[in-house]
Amino acid sequence: MASFPFEGFLSTPEALSLFGESSVVQAMMDFEAALARACAAEGLIPASAAQAIANVCKADLYDISALVAESGRAGSLAIPLVKKLTETVALFDKQAAGYVHWGSTSQDVIDTAMALLTRRAWAMIDRDLGELIRALLELAQVHADTPVLARTLMQPAQVVSFGFKCVGWATPLVRRRESLRRRAHEALALQFGGAVGTLSSLGARGSAVAARIAQELGLHWPGQAWHTQRDEWVAFGAEVGVLCGALGKIARDWSLLAQSEVGELAEPSGTGRGGSSAMPHKRNPVASMVALAAAARAPHRVAAILAAMPQEHERGLGNWQAELAEWAGLFITAHGAVRALAQAAGGLEVDAPRMRRNIDALHGLVSTEVVALCLAERIGKSAAHTLVESLARRAVQEHRPLKELVAAAVQADPALSGTLDAAELERLFDPVQAAQPAARWVREWLPRLRAQAAQ
Amino acid sequence: MASFPFEGFLSTPEALSLFGESSVVQAMMDFEAALARACAAEGLIPASAAQAIANVCKADLYDISALVAESGRAGSLAIPLVKKLTETVALFDKQAAGYVHWGSTSQDVIDTAMALLTRRAWAMIDRDLGELIRALLELAQVHADTPVLARTLMQPAQVVSFGFKCVGWATPLVRRRESLRRRAHEALALQFGGAVGTLSSLGARGSAVAARIAQELGLHWPGQAWHTQRDEWVAFGAEVGVLCGALGKIARDWSLLAQSEVGELAEPSGTGRGGSSAMPHKRNPVASMVALAAAARAPHRVAAILAAMPQEHERGLGNWQAELAEWAGLFITAHGAVRALAQAAGGLEVDAPRMRRNIDALHGLVSTEVVALCLAERIGKSAAHTLVESLARRAVQEHRPLKELVAAAVQADPALSGTLDAAELERLFDPVQAAQPAARWVREWLPRLRAQAAQ
Amino acid sequence: MASFPFEGFLSTPEALSLFGESSVVQAMMDFEAALARACAAEGLIPASAAQAIANVCKADLYDISALVAESGRAGSLAIPLVKKLTETVALFDKQAAGYVHWGSTSQDVIDTAMALLTRRAWAMIDRDLGELIRALLELAQVHADTPVLARTLMQPAQVVSFGFKCVGWATPLVRRRESLRRRAHEALALQFGGAVGTLSSLGARGSAVAARIAQELGLHWPGQAWHTQRDEWVAFGAEVGVLCGALGKIARDWSLLAQSEVGELAEPSGTGRGGSSAMPHKRNPVASMVALAAAARAPHRVAAILAAMPQEHERGLGNWQAELAEWAGLFITAHGAVRALAQAAGGLEVDAPRMRRNIDALHGLVSTEVVALCLAERIGKSAAHTLVESLARRAVQEHRPLKELVAAAVQADPALSGTLDAAELERLFDPVQAAQPAARWVREWLPRLRAQAAQ
Amino acid sequence: MASFPFEGFLSTPEALSLFGESSVVQAMMDFEAALARACAAEGLIPASAAQAIANVCKADLYDISALVAESGRAGSLAIPLVKKLTETVALFDKQAAGYVHWGSTSQDVIDTAMALLTRRAWAMIDRDLGELIRALLELAQVHADTPVLARTLMQPAQVVSFGFKCVGWATPLVRRRESLRRRAHEALALQFGGAVGTLSSLGARGSAVAARIAQELGLHWPGQAWHTQRDEWVAFGAEVGVLCGALGKIARDWSLLAQSEVGELAEPSGTGRGGSSAMPHKRNPVASMVALAAAARAPHRVAAILAAMPQEHERGLGNWQAELAEWAGLFITAHGAVRALAQAAGGLEVDAPRMRRNIDALHGLVSTEVVALCLAERIGKSAAHTLVESLARRAVQEHRPLKELVAAAVQADPALSGTLDAAELERLFDPVQAAQPAARWVREWLPRLRAQAAQ
Repeated sequence: MASFPFEGFLSTPEALSLFGESSVVQAMMDFEAALARACAAEGLIPASAAQAIANVCKADLYDISALVAESGRAGSLAIPLVKKLTETVALFDKQAAGYVHWGSTSQDVIDTAMALLTRRAWAMIDRDLGELIRALLELAQVHADTPVLARTLMQPAQVVSFGFKCVGWATPLVRRRESLRRRAHEALALQFGGAVGTLSSLGARGSAVAARIAQELGLHWPGQAWHTQRDEWVAFGAEVGVLCGALGKIARDWSLLAQSEVGELAEPSGTGRGGSSAMPHKRNPVASMVALAAAARAPHRVAAILAAMPQEHERGLGNWQAELAEWAGLFITAHGAVRALAQAAGGLEVDAPRMRRNIDALHGLVSTEVVALCLAERIGKSAAHTLVESLARRAVQEHRPLKELVAAAVQADPALSGTLDAAELERLFDPVQAAQPAARWVREWLPRLRAQAAQ
Repeated sequence: MASFPFEGFLSTPEALSLFGESSVVQAMMDFEAALARACAAEGLIPASAAQAIANVCKADLYDISALVAESGRAGSLAIPLVKKLTETVALFDKQAAGYVHWGSTSQDVIDTAMALLTRRAWAMIDRDLGELIRALLELAQVHADTPVLARTLMQPAQVVSFGFKCVGWATPLVRRRESLRRRAHEALALQFGGAVGTLSSLGARGSAVAARIAQELGLHWPGQAWHTQRDEWVAFGAEVGVLCGALGKIARDWSLLAQSEVGELAEPSGTGRGGSSAMPHKRNPVASMVALAAAARAPHRVAAILAAMPQEHERGLGNWQAELAEWAGLFITAHGAVRALAQAAGGLEVDAPRMRRNIDALHGLVSTEVVALCLAERIGKSAAHTLVESLARRAVQEHRPLKELVAAAVQADPALSGTLDAAELERLFDPVQAAQPAARWVREWLPRLRAQAAQ
Repeated sequence: MASFPFEGFLSTPEALSLFGESSVVQAMMDFEAALARACAAEGLIPASAAQAIANVCKADLYDISALVAESGRAGSLAIPLVKKLTETVALFDKQAAGYVHWGSTSQDVIDTAMALLTRRAWAMIDRDLGELIRALLELAQVHADTPVLARTLMQPAQVVSFGFKCVGWATPLVRRRESLRRRAHEALALQFGGAVGTLSSLGARGSAVAARIAQELGLHWPGQAWHTQRDEWVAFGAEVGVLCGALGKIARDWSLLAQSEVGELAEPSGTGRGGSSAMPHKRNPVASMVALAAAARAPHRVAAILAAMPQEHERGLGNWQAELAEWAGLFITAHGAVRALAQAAGGLEVDAPRMRRNIDALHGLVSTEVVALCLAERIGKSAAHTLVESLARRAVQEHRPLKELVAAAVQADPALSGTLDAAELERLFDPVQAAQPAARWVREWLPRLRAQAAQ
Repeated sequence: MASFPFEGFLSTPEALSLFGESSVVQAMMDFEAALARACAAEGLIPASAAQAIANVCKADLYDISALVAESGRAGSLAIPLVKKLTETVALFDKQAAGYVHWGSTSQDVIDTAMALLTRRAWAMIDRDLGELIRALLELAQVHADTPVLARTLMQPAQVVSFGFKCVGWATPLVRRRESLRRRAHEALALQFGGAVGTLSSLGARGSAVAARIAQELGLHWPGQAWHTQRDEWVAFGAEVGVLCGALGKIARDWSLLAQSEVGELAEPSGTGRGGSSAMPHKRNPVASMVALAAAARAPHRVAAILAAMPQEHERGLGNWQAELAEWAGLFITAHGAVRALAQAAGGLEVDAPRMRRNIDALHGLVSTEVVALCLAERIGKSAAHTLVESLARRAVQEHRPLKELVAAAVQADPALSGTLDAAELERLFDPVQAAQPAARWVREWLPRLRAQAAQ
């Protein structure tokens, strides 16, 4: 079966391969082997049969493309896989063949395989997330005091520090990483219920077999099948969607800061990274591109798996299959985004002098609030707001520093005289001073986030 | 401003009113009053000013429609509200007017107001969820042993008990209720950062003021503003989406079971409930309808708030506003669904004899797996599967009980002779026996779920 | 790169392969060859160069996996492809290498390639849609008069004919097929703008070159590049989403009608189709499953490509890439659904006697409206509605035919005497009569739909 | 019932009111009046009854809030409305009351009412879209030759003209407007089918009655009911989603161009527009905000209505209600966006000198492609690309004009001598010249778009 080329640069080879055919089939085989051993351990099938089955639960013994092609007619990958596995066992041990897939159903093997693979995908994400967080906190430390424009509604607002922005990017990642870890326990669960969720064909041994399989595979056993009760699983997927949103926020900011007119930040360059087929001078922010694409795609995957929840009766028709087909993409795209940002964060080029020039280009307008607050003490907040607003407008129109205009206004108006001396004015309009409130937050949060990230 | 009539029957009056204009404005006023008191307590503004401000933080003093209309030009409801509040304070205390909204920004008051209202919406959902769970567990108890068809891929599969289905409906609700409670703490947080998130105009007192406001309003203070770091908030919304999925699953099943050809279950009737303007005999499953609609709508709300996460810099343009406009609908629709199902669950009509007749109509086909397992001990799983499959086909074609055909086959085939005597056959085909594995799960889970639901 | 096994049974091999790596690369090569020839024809590059380029525009000359892997670093598949193509041309004709990709940009070659492949995907859909429509109209003809229950809000309503239901399924398909055809012309357009959409490096020959390429490739040339003006393209994708909804509606109905308790319809069986790994007797409606999955997935793909529309400036960052990655899935899933339903429709098993039995089981309740209308002529609509409603309730409770109760009521009430004689009563409660209004619609619409479908 | 304040500034009062309770009830009454008249004209009910019914089909005669509240229990707004209408008719003409809602069903009146309101919403959108297009084409004319940076992947690319960008914004709007008009005919259709779509209670007069109602209400009569065949309707909604995407693209660009560091464009200012409660100098791009919010919300509404398409049998359970509740928001948000952009477009402040300065700040880098093309004629494309790339890198690092470096390189390298003289170099690096290819497109397209927009 063909694969899609336009996933390539939005993902990672590891994640793509993890959810690929061979890997899925092997994970299904891992379930079948664990099932056979557990049934033998509980005395339900002969130990020799379990051994015979486990011996051939190796994906590379099978023509995987043929299995997948066969799944088209069967409506399930489990049907041809169990059939072929049974035939293969029979080649070596005819009696053992009768114990393949004992007491289990298609959805048991497929859901469990997906849980196994999802655990590995989550581990990849977790690891690269750790790297990204560390790189951001490193930047936060270095630039704790570096003044930079804060911007609201895409307009300049006031001054913060670049470290403050880095803390703002890292904090949600630390939270999401912890949240994913907490949820992984419940969500990465063995699926095991047999035909209708009761494990009836295992008699009284159902729970014991389940516990053994879960133990061997390192999955949680929730004590029930969850064939059509997929809330924990879907909630885990939704968490990955939230993570993609937090990554997209970083990428949105990077891409805005990397515009040539802003120029405060650049993704690392390197051979073959972000070039243009038409324009030799271009250096495109490809890591941001990958994360923005992930943030654009993930919400719809989450919506798809949420919408697939009302599954009929004991096993759904169409909705389970839809969820199954949407699931991998969520993790693949998330890993692509985390990896891309983690790699770029390490080599991010931060242009502190440019940050300063961008502040200076605003004629002191970013200090309007603090100036208005000073004047408000004398003439009231409303009058001060109005005065400063009109001075700000003149500063823009006449391309003059607001500082000068404020000084003149204070001198001209007896009601204001003495409110602001020259030193005070300097202080109010000094970006380094203006960045200090932000810097204080960085110093407060950095150790805390470092500690959490180190876990 | 007009309201939309087609939300009416998909929601509850309480939830609609909670997120309505008056209620939102009052919550914003609650923030402003708490802010003033906190600033006074920290010595930033005079106590008398705080008092003067708090005195007029009452929504019914204002022309709310005018405020909302004004928000259209301003691009924010906070701008006209703060302006009008300031004017009103000034009527009583000119100086105090200067301290309105001290150190705060539009998004602080709006996000905090939404957190306050969301807490109340969640409480409504939590309460009705408790009722729904209790009703389902009650049904589970009563029908622990009642045989009912399990159906997979919308085809009859095997026999479980109706109580088993009830446990399957209740379990995710118990989990979602707990998960919402755990997440509420982080998500229902004070928003407080001032213009760019640093609370710079409050000097060193920012955190102290924040802690006081949070304390007064009963919200969590995460230690930072979350203007564009909305992951906890969005994750809480996503949880509500997962809940709607779990409710939709129940409604899907109810609506299928309530089909006249199935007839195993009916929603309670009552004057004005579910009638038809054209057909006098109709009794429509309106509670299921409401929950199915919620499950159909919520995923897209979740997608919308997830997609809005990559907000620019220190405050976003368009995406925050989109999230704000989508948010309430998620909780309103969820409450509509929980309430509808809770009310219906209490009066659900369960037709156990019909459940039995539906099983009997299948000529014993639901016992194929268990029969095949028995025969497999003698002739191997594959041969048994093939034999039973062909007998099952004949049973359908000839409208004969599978039991008879199996008995005949066993008698006819020397390889099988002695495998199944008459008593054994009776047992294999007895629905009451067949329901026992399911009943065991009910007895195991019921006390556990009851304990959790009682919390 | 790996491919995803769970797409296999929701799609078709042709559609999967169409959007696979080799096929995409060949379509990109087709663009490059056409571009070279068009530039030569307009005198911009030597004819020999065009020939040299076209000679090696054959996907199987290249290591496609390597190209795709390389795209990960470059952030675009076009960059490595153009580089490798240039190197390959240079092996044969060093000077010609300088004319590769002349005046074009990455997005030109990728978007055009996607338009070429989409045209082929649409042709596959169109063809199978034709088959599905024909099969449904054939059924409509055969069952024009076959009485079947109409059901509203999942409750029995009145009697229609099965042919009427078939017409209801086919009509939207006929409309969507026409709509897709009308839109294909605009949407399947050459993308050609060069670096920023002006074709500046082609001087005055830009439009002429474009027209030639479009002509050769059989695509529409809209007269402008559409790099970030993707409305026609997205609208075409949205149409496919609407088609999936219409297919999903059919599948929803089939799956409901195929429930064993309803039993009015069955998908064709066959070796390997819809079996169960646990239950020998199961025959799952796998065509419905595929179409339901498509209807569950497509809306989110459409949302993703709609949400990706606000692309920045002359070429977007992340959103174009997201659209590109989501696009193929929409067509693949749609083709899977159309094909599955078309194949099943041909062999659909319709159980007319069962349809009749299901009507009969309702004790005549489906005739309430028509009876009430008759009585209303004498006692007014409201009184008639009330009377019939109460008789209907008794019919259900006492398991008696409504016909008897109505006869008794007419006899008992002097106000009604003479309204309904025995013959009239028979007619009102006769399903064959009741199906006639529906049958008239079938006879009216069938020729019209046939004519449209034949186009 | 309460209304939601955060819709206020994302919509228009007209659109909100259009889909509000009174307006919906009146539209439903319009259907009932037209139905009565049509039935009378066809001799099905007395003319006097039709008159009596039509006389009281006036929304302001009713307690609308009570009707809406009642719809909660009934699961439909039509049930209490028809009941109350019948009672009211009876006050004046007892016999006529029996003819209310003759032959019709709840969904007929509700869907038709929505079609009537949607037609008016579409007319509002169409009108404001015309204004927006005209304003953009006016700007295109004025700035046909104004050089401005084209930007790709959020990095500077080459020079186009601002008029070219305006044409790029206007073209999709012209296309969408036409497409909406073409589709309106099919989509804005009478819904009329009676209980199950056959109009059986109207005997042979069903189609004739339908044609009369459609004629009176100015709606299309498709010849069939479309209760669960909602493809045309949904396709129309999807078109509105595409429009929102095209509007969002404009807003995305405006908001990027309006950043203070870019400063090429500003939304008009005015009292109360886009102020900040914390920062006196802020002028927020509120029109862009509204359109971006619409583009962020609409895709999810479209997904919701697409996902609701697989409606069960003759009328759906939950999915129709979900579509109904989502529908209005799509049109309201679209109208908010069109209106906001149309108002802003008229007063857009375009800063041509700043556009020029932004180009100049790039040291001539935007001319790399054209320079490389010139040099390629002598040394081949690949060598030229490499040379220009290295010169471009030096230009950035040394803050020197690329023009100087190219001149020096040409002089230094005998292979290049004579390729570019001074005049040629000037021309290559002149933004006004560079804008000419773009300007040619403007001159070609402007008359065409004007002609289309004038329709």
